[in-house]
Amino acid sequence: MKKSLLILSLFFLLLSWSKKTDLTTIKVSNIDELNEAISHAKAGHHIVLANGIWKDVQIKFIGEGTEDKPITIEAETPGKVFIEGVSNLEIAGNYLIVKGLYFRNGYTPTKNVIAFRTNEEKVANYSRVTNCVILDYNQQQRDKDDLWVQFYGTHNTLDHCYIAGKTNGGPTLRVDLKGNQSIRNYHQIVNNHFGPRPRKGGARGETIQLGSSFTSMSPSNTTIANNFFEECNGEVEIISSKTNFNEIRNNVFYKSEGSVVTRHGNYAIIDGNYFIGDGVNKNYGGIRLVNTGHWVINNYFYKIIGENFRSPLAVMNGIPKSPLNRYNQVTDVVVAYNTYVDCKSPWQFGVGTNIEQKDVLPESEIRSARALRTVVANNVIYNKIGDKNVIIEHDKADGVKFKSNIINNQGVTFGDTDRIKATEFELTKIGEHIYLPKLTGEFDIYQGFGFETITKDLFGNSRANKNAIGATVQGELKDTNILDKTKYGADWYSNVVETIPPNVIEVTTTKGELETKITTAKSGDIISLNPGKYYLSKSIAIDKTITIQSKENDKAEIIFTGAGNTPLFELNPYGILHIKNVSLTGNGKQKAFSNLKENMSNHFGLTVTSCDINNFNYVLKAYKQTFAQEITFKDTAITNCENGIELSEETNDKGDYNVEFLTVENCKFSNVNQNVIDYYRGGYDESTIGGNLLVTNSSFSNCGSKEENGILLNTRGIVNVDISNNTFKNNPVKLVALLWGAKNNSHANNQITNSGQIKVEQNLKMKLMY
Amino acid sequence: MKKSLLILSLFFLLLSWSKKTDLTTIKVSNIDELNEAISHAKAGHHIVLANGIWKDVQIKFIGEGTEDKPITIEAETPGKVFIEGVSNLEIAGNYLIVKGLYFRNGYTPTKNVIAFRTNEEKVANYSRVTNCVILDYNQQQRDKDDLWVQFYGTHNTLDHCYIAGKTNGGPTLRVDLKGNQSIRNYHQIVNNHFGPRPRKGGARGETIQLGSSFTSMSPSNTTIANNFFEECNGEVEIISSKTNFNEIRNNVFYKSEGSVVTRHGNYAIIDGNYFIGDGVNKNYGGIRLVNTGHWVINNYFYKIIGENFRSPLAVMNGIPKSPLNRYNQVTDVVVAYNTYVDCKSPWQFGVGTNIEQKDVLPESEIRSARALRTVVANNVIYNKIGDKNVIIEHDKADGVKFKSNIINNQGVTFGDTDRIKATEFELTKIGEHIYLPKLTGEFDIYQGFGFETITKDLFGNSRANKNAIGATVQGELKDTNILDKTKYGADWYSNVVETIPPNVIEVTTTKGELETKITTAKSGDIISLNPGKYYLSKSIAIDKTITIQSKENDKAEIIFTGAGNTPLFELNPYGILHIKNVSLTGNGKQKAFSNLKENMSNHFGLTVTSCDINNFNYVLKAYKQTFAQEITFKDTAITNCENGIELSEETNDKGDYNVEFLTVENCKFSNVNQNVIDYYRGGYDESTIGGNLLVTNSSFSNCGSKEENGILLNTRGIVNVDISNNTFKNNPVKLVALLWGAKNNSHANNQITNSGQIKVEQNLKMKLMY
Repeated sequence: MKKSLLILSLFFLLLSWSKKTDLTTIKVSNIDELNEAISHAKAGHHIVLANGIWKDVQIKFIGEGTEDKPITIEAETPGKVFIEGVSNLEIAGNYLIVKGLYFRNGYTPTKNVIAFRTNEEKVANYSRVTNCVILDYNQQQRDKDDLWVQFYGTHNTLDHCYIAGKTNGGPTLRVDLKGNQSIRNYHQIVNNHFGPRPRKGGARGETIQLGSSFTSMSPSNTTIANNFFEECNGEVEIISSKTNFNEIRNNVFYKSEGSVVTRHGNYAIIDGNYFIGDGVNKNYGGIRLVNTGHWVINNYFYKIIGENFRSPLAVMNGIPKSPLNRYNQVTDVVVAYNTYVDCKSPWQFGVGTNIEQKDVLPESEIRSARALRTVVANNVIYNKIGDKNVIIEHDKADGVKFKSNIINNQGVTFGDTDRIKATEFELTKIGEHIYLPKLTGEFDIYQGFGFETITKDLFGNSRANKNAIGATVQGELKDTNILDKTKYGADWYSNVVETIPPNVIEVTTTKGELETKITTAKSGDIISLNPGKYYLSKSIAIDKTITIQSKENDKAEIIFTGAGNTPLFELNPYGILHIKNVSLTGNGKQKAFSNLKENMSNHFGLTVTSCDINNFNYVLKAYKQTFAQEITFKDTAITNCENGIELSEETNDKGDYNVEFLTVENCKFSNVNQNVIDYYRGGYDESTIGGNLLVTNSSFSNCGSKEENGILLNTRGIVNVDISNNTFKNNPVKLVALLWGAKNNSHANNQITNSGQIKVEQNLKMKLMY
Repeated sequence: MKKSLLILSLFFLLLSWSKKTDLTTIKVSNIDELNEAISHAKAGHHIVLANGIWKDVQIKFIGEGTEDKPITIEAETPGKVFIEGVSNLEIAGNYLIVKGLYFRNGYTPTKNVIAFRTNEEKVANYSRVTNCVILDYNQQQRDKDDLWVQFYGTHNTLDHCYIAGKTNGGPTLRVDLKGNQSIRNYHQIVNNHFGPRPRKGGARGETIQLGSSFTSMSPSNTTIANNFFEECNGEVEIISSKTNFNEIRNNVFYKSEGSVVTRHGNYAIIDGNYFIGDGVNKNYGGIRLVNTGHWVINNYFYKIIGENFRSPLAVMNGIPKSPLNRYNQVTDVVVAYNTYVDCKSPWQFGVGTNIEQKDVLPESEIRSARALRTVVANNVIYNKIGDKNVIIEHDKADGVKFKSNIINNQGVTFGDTDRIKATEFELTKIGEHIYLPKLTGEFDIYQGFGFETITKDLFGNSRANKNAIGATVQGELKDTNILDKTKYGADWYSNVVETIPPNVIEVTTTKGELETKITTAKSGDIISLNPGKYYLSKSIAIDKTITIQSKENDKAEIIFTGAGNTPLFELNPYGILHIKNVSLTGNGKQKAFSNLKENMSNHFGLTVTSCDINNFNYVLKAYKQTFAQEITFKDTAITNCENGIELSEETNDKGDYNVEFLTVENCKFSNVNQNVIDYYRGGYDESTIGGNLLVTNSSFSNCGSKEENGILLNTRGIVNVDISNNTFKNNPVKLVALLWGAKNNSHANNQITNSGQIKVEQNLKMKLMY
């Protein structure tokens, strides 16, 4: 015993360069030293990682701390220890703490960046990751799924971390419930800043997932509290609660394109959260309910105008006797003491009903079971502009009891005044985006079963003495500064970016100058082309945000002499190109724009304005596993190309697609032989609600002559399609488009001459995804 | 305030005939007085029901007691207040107690005999029914389902009650979980005696059901402890746990034909129960597991030889992504510290696998998902006679971890010695049916996740210091007298019946004597017929257990001259007839035996031994909604009848059937034109495992000439069929029988001449029941 103590002390003495002179702190500079330190660490020890880049390190932090004396691994200076390359962190044991690390410029070699276990048997308990950042730590390929934080074991905490930029498949954070060692886990996910997660295009883009349908019977008891969710746009679910007894409290959902969804599992508490929209973007959602026993109380919704799945309160229809992985009926749910300000049709019931599709879907897919034994009470709605449809019943809400709800709808008739009583009251501004009803006089407060447990309001004020309906009690209320980002995430990191005006970099036709100046430009800069002809023999890689435009009104001309099948502009990860007022000419065999066929570890983007594009094999070719949030062609002429805009490689039918918004506005397509616009999403999944195509004010002539399937504009599986105000002339195809009537597909005011027709099929047959 | 107090006091004074002189006790003699008393009752009050028969009373006990001062309704003398006729009891409010009532000779006009609510809104909490009896309180028709005790609300108790004799549809007791007012209910079902519940014949015969599949996501937290289950034979499930977190502790399952089943819901604790069989009856079961997270610990199994669904431990296969009402996969289950003595193949896995039936069943019915993450550890098995198949894998148990299990198999090879270690040890007799392993030396004790929470053994002894594998620690153990019935149920009631030798009542052929003497006989008596001819012109009703036999060796002759379509013997509720060595002759138009077409509120039974039956339209005709546990024909000749044994009216295809055991042994059938034997069960339900037909050593000649379906012995849907050692000669039918190969249907050693054949169809197509 004494001997081993001596050796240990010696070891710590020898390796310790720390300023601290105590024997319990050791500083390490490389993975070998770290491993050695971990293997000797005892309760109360601190292991300090030297500042600098730690590349290709797989840290296995195994130890046994105690409640009073945890074992800690921490950065020498928080934020100055960079975990890069092919790296990850696994933690197992008890009372372990990790502090101050920065994961960037790399990806995990396993399924997790941070895992609270080292193998199936060995999990972490009572352990904590704090004050860390994970940024853009994406796999090379979008379809290679991983998780950035995965919880196992019990009583673990992730707090004060900043996590953002995940573009590949897989939730950002998941709690795993497999095995008794991970149930009743009481994990805490608190005070974090979940920064922007770009739209992923399809499923598997949740920010937080609590379990899965296969563990949906497990008691999880996970708390997600006081976090800031900013632009978490990965998919339709920001938080997907799939287990029981989870608590989602006092979080801020700020301009996040998704909802908090009780997807599986039961008895979630969603209490005191802020859902902040802008009254414009319909993708910002609220709370979507499936299953049993949830309590939705004290929440505040501001300018959330999402519809249907994304409405502020979306109560879904279930499938009778639903399969485990589908939709259980909503029962025994309470929605009480919430406040809705300037939302649109905030309460929607029977969401997801698809009784009309019973001919094309199996019986086990038909959501016909309406909510039962559900109470909606003591809620307040305020609309600056009256809303004619405050409640939308996609299917009847006849199993829902409405009690003591009021609305100021500015006198506009809104339907059932038994369910919501029209009332006059004003708002008080408390802080940015926070406007609360000022109620005077007496209002009935409904006392349902268990309502006595709702003891506090949105701000934590007691409801004991001065209770009121709505998210807050009445009286003087203080601004809680929910948008103050310093309250969330790592204390050494801010995602607030100072706006710097772009550099305008002039370029002449001198050989090589354009390529060089694009390479050396900073992200956001503008390349200004002097008039003339630019001959390029090789592709130009775009790996940042860049604008290329003609300096004069006349279009500069870029003539591409590169090899067949190569692109003029090669869009790399992060490459967002805006090209304006330029003429692009090929030799008929190349591509004007394309992205990388492999290793597109981050999204690209493209906006083409007022350009002429001639004589290419492809105008745009996007490969599988690549994604752009937006692709826009505007005021542009596309002539004599073999293929047009080709975004159809996501053919594995798992709901993925290549671009979220494809816009074609005021363009002219002539002599484009095939794939004029080819935009595809495959696989039926009612909760993938993307793909957005707008084709408007454009003309198409003599196009589609080689189109094998006989359809000019291919939009199969895309959920939102608007084809309007276009002219189609002399296109030798059977159909201009085949639209999906049951989804948000529409067409209007198109002039079609000698070009087939636009056909609408109500229910497209799609492959089920699950 | 003062005034109302005065009136109340006056009221209690005026009505009070109680010996107690305090103002809080009031005695009532009829329903009006009771209603009045209830309406005025305050916390602490006692309402005493006068002894006697209370007929056709619907008691609504609504009140607000307190923890210290409950409101009580009690019998003047426990057991001397008889609730009869069309009566029931409903309780709503808080802290209410009901004591000492006896429900008999009647049935409820509602769905419940005792309900812990008065309407959907108003439930009982913290209320108790104690020291009561419900006996044979059956609806008039078997298909009219009801519940004898239905729990709603929370924290209610049923204790020290005796409940027995339910023959109609519906569980004896159910806990209802619909609505937040009934979840996390912590109900206590303790110290009761659940007496014999006869086989029901089909589903809906559970003794206790906790919730339903539609509330299977709800936390129930119901405790069933220290109860005595005696001959609870209603169906294959004695206790059907269908919700979460239920605890089943220290109960005795004594010769009960069924199992404790975690049918839906998860995380049940089944701890310290006794399963006592006899080594003969294969219908006595153990614990059957479906779903997630159950802990099966400290249980004792003695001479349980049930197979498959009824095996001591039956771990089922689930349906992948199972529908809500079907079978979820078993995951995260712990089976530890149990002891099995003289059981047969006690551990069975993959129970219910039906992969082979995938051609006749829909995909959503195929149980192919094997148990996952399940631990079987620290168990002890003792077999006096070695068992070659200790573990049966209907499907692979490859997701199950076996640790530290031992067996004394008397040296007989039993398969996988890694899973169970062969060991020598002896048993110590502790009490009746209780034999415990005497382990000497060191045995590894596996410490799985959470095992430290198993702190006590079967008897409640601490495992802290002298822990051992198996249900008990080692050392001196006291007999806990589990079979001492005075420990369970109402203190004033015993179901122990003194055996009285039957009276033998001689009868002569004098007109009217036979009828009279049968009418006046006591249940169990023997009617002894002097030789001669007995002419009967009207049916004889049998409403008790009675034996009719010839006094001499020569058969007495009963000649029935009654009207067409009437039976010679009319089997009424409770009518169990044994007729021996008698000749019965009809005129070709009547029935020899039949039961009531309506109001068969209890079962019948029939044993015919060494009789001659001639010239009836029907030998036996059973009507819909009637049931016999056993019907036996032995050493009997059946000649010149239009129809034979007709038990085929349960055609609603809900799994019901008319008799549990039909035995035909050493009989001669000749010239029976149709329905020679017609025994039917309809509807596919894997958990209905009855219908038992044995036809052996019998002969059939010149039968079936008018059989429309061309099958001599109709057995469709019957699960257990054995046709062996019979002779079939000159029966003009296409098939002797059509057997169901996938079930327990067999035939052997039959001599078939000019009578078609016996055909076996592996998978009969059946109508799904759900």
